[in-house]
Amino acid sequence: MRATLMHGAGDVRIEEVPDARLVEPTDAVVVVTRAAICGSDLWPYKSMEHDEAGRRMGHEFIGLVESVGADVRTLKPGDVVVAPFLYSDGTCVFCREGLHASCIHGGRYGFDGVDGGQGEAVRVPQADGTLVVLPVGRDDALMPSLLTLTDVMATGHHAALAAEVGPGKTAAVVGDGAVGLCGVIAARRLGAEQIVVLGRHPDRIALARAFGATDIVSERGDEAVERVRELTGGFGAHSVLECVGLEESTLTALGIARPGGAVGRVGVPQEDSIPSSLPFFRNVRIGGGPAPARAYIEELLPDVLEGRIEPGRVFDRVGPIDEVPDGYRAMNEREAIKVMIEF
Amino acid sequence: MRATLMHGAGDVRIEEVPDARLVEPTDAVVVVTRAAICGSDLWPYKSMEHDEAGRRMGHEFIGLVESVGADVRTLKPGDVVVAPFLYSDGTCVFCREGLHASCIHGGRYGFDGVDGGQGEAVRVPQADGTLVVLPVGRDDALMPSLLTLTDVMATGHHAALAAEVGPGKTAAVVGDGAVGLCGVIAARRLGAEQIVVLGRHPDRIALARAFGATDIVSERGDEAVERVRELTGGFGAHSVLECVGLEESTLTALGIARPGGAVGRVGVPQEDSIPSSLPFFRNVRIGGGPAPARAYIEELLPDVLEGRIEPGRVFDRVGPIDEVPDGYRAMNEREAIKVMIEF
Repeated sequence: MRATLMHGAGDVRIEEVPDARLVEPTDAVVVVTRAAICGSDLWPYKSMEHDEAGRRMGHEFIGLVESVGADVRTLKPGDVVVAPFLYSDGTCVFCREGLHASCIHGGRYGFDGVDGGQGEAVRVPQADGTLVVLPVGRDDALMPSLLTLTDVMATGHHAALAAEVGPGKTAAVVGDGAVGLCGVIAARRLGAEQIVVLGRHPDRIALARAFGATDIVSERGDEAVERVRELTGGFGAHSVLECVGLEESTLTALGIARPGGAVGRVGVPQEDSIPSSLPFFRNVRIGGGPAPARAYIEELLPDVLEGRIEPGRVFDRVGPIDEVPDGYRAMNEREAIKVMIEF
Repeated sequence: MRATLMHGAGDVRIEEVPDARLVEPTDAVVVVTRAAICGSDLWPYKSMEHDEAGRRMGHEFIGLVESVGADVRTLKPGDVVVAPFLYSDGTCVFCREGLHASCIHGGRYGFDGVDGGQGEAVRVPQADGTLVVLPVGRDDALMPSLLTLTDVMATGHHAALAAEVGPGKTAAVVGDGAVGLCGVIAARRLGAEQIVVLGRHPDRIALARAFGATDIVSERGDEAVERVRELTGGFGAHSVLECVGLEESTLTALGIARPGGAVGRVGVPQEDSIPSSLPFFRNVRIGGGPAPARAYIEELLPDVLEGRIEPGRVFDRVGPIDEVPDGYRAMNEREAIKVMIEF
């Protein structure tokens, strides 16, 4: 079968790999119908050292169950399924608490002999705990939005929850990438009254406004902090969604949080320190991390199925697997917000 | 009147200063009956550069109202009052939300022409918003416990709330100083099932056990992390109270937090960075800061008055104002847990 491999910074290739196949009795093999490139895939795209063997890429996909292991109880061949970006058993102490991202038997696609999602098929471990059957056909018009539940919409929702968004509050979203845009949807869905987006790309800003952003701040650094304070009565935002992961964006996120507010971080940290005193002296809480997408799929699915949210609008480019390498380039150069792969 | 001034590291003196007097119509002058030395007073005691003018010290005191400004409505001369460690107006947007530590018109004792608490009298700004009248006589047997409400017990409570302590949870307290010990009281009061204290001083450990600690970890660094995990089913504590403020203690606090858990920081940060990835990948929330002691005094007062908690047991040395310099030395050398000054 064909799959996406990264061999180093800027070096993404589509190659022949061994067919996905059942290994454990708890596995399912899913034939991928749609997949996506994630903003987090761009970090190795910018910095990975050359690796001749290559790394299997992708963790956002929807597909059809092709076969299931002997212990799989809830899935059958032909089911249309959506996969959260981490697999999880659904039964461990963390999964039972809704923190599937810390599943004791969980893991990541593309590692430890598990296929990546940007390929023709994937062996999904812990299939019963991981996959969610969708009540729609394989080419339903809702597929783009359903595909965002694998990661980007779940992650935006996680940022909003960690930032303690609630009715009547002011939310600020740092980052106008696909996760930040989904953060706008999530903040609005949770009742935020004012939603400030920090970003500067016209196409993304337009989408942010369509999703519910009330104010746009195009400044950066200290000027951005000043501007957000002006927009929020001088105090900052109750809830800040950090959707980038860089040192500067984290500093901005902490700077625009109101005393007693909260920052929800979902951008994968690219630097290993955050300021200590800035949040401390203003009692700003810091939360977030990898989203338990498995839990949120069930929570968000009705809103997608009933058309209340349309996160699939973040996809502004669609192509076959052969266009994946150029999709990475386009996203990295901010030519595209997010790329969907159709099989 | 006599008051405590610090002139540099290790240089604390009792000196004559101008009598406390009303300046603003919202002021009250309080004749101090009891005061305390705070663990946070030890940071300048260790590091302050020489200052001939000196810095007025102290922010934990109880006393009698001597006089009130024309606008003060809720206090009268003779009232026995307890002062939170920050003054606050009680009416601003943050005070109304219970975050008195961020009061727009608030401030610190010993700064901006306001007296320090380790002296014979204090001009208290925003007296109506700040002071709480106590329903006891000036020498009531409960005075030591009431005095802890000014800071150390309120701060321990803040750590426990920020660490999201709740019924059935496991709590871990980093630091066996007076705040850590009050954190044990707070964790037990909020229903923690298991309370692990990281500390190694026999007198403090004995008090921690008396307050409700179920396990003691005397190791440090990685060994402490390992030991706490062993004691908590391999995963770490749901709620971690960071009551020191050093880089190492913060690292330990983050290391012993369970995935999905929370760290409540109340130790004043002595280093300006905290690790980013360690809490992120385990979805550990970080909260805390200066406690809104004014809010907590009302919450905790009934428990003190009815004898359900006895935080005053952290005082293991009592003396007159002349013994304040030696009190600093004794606390700094860990000869005393906490020193009370009687007037």
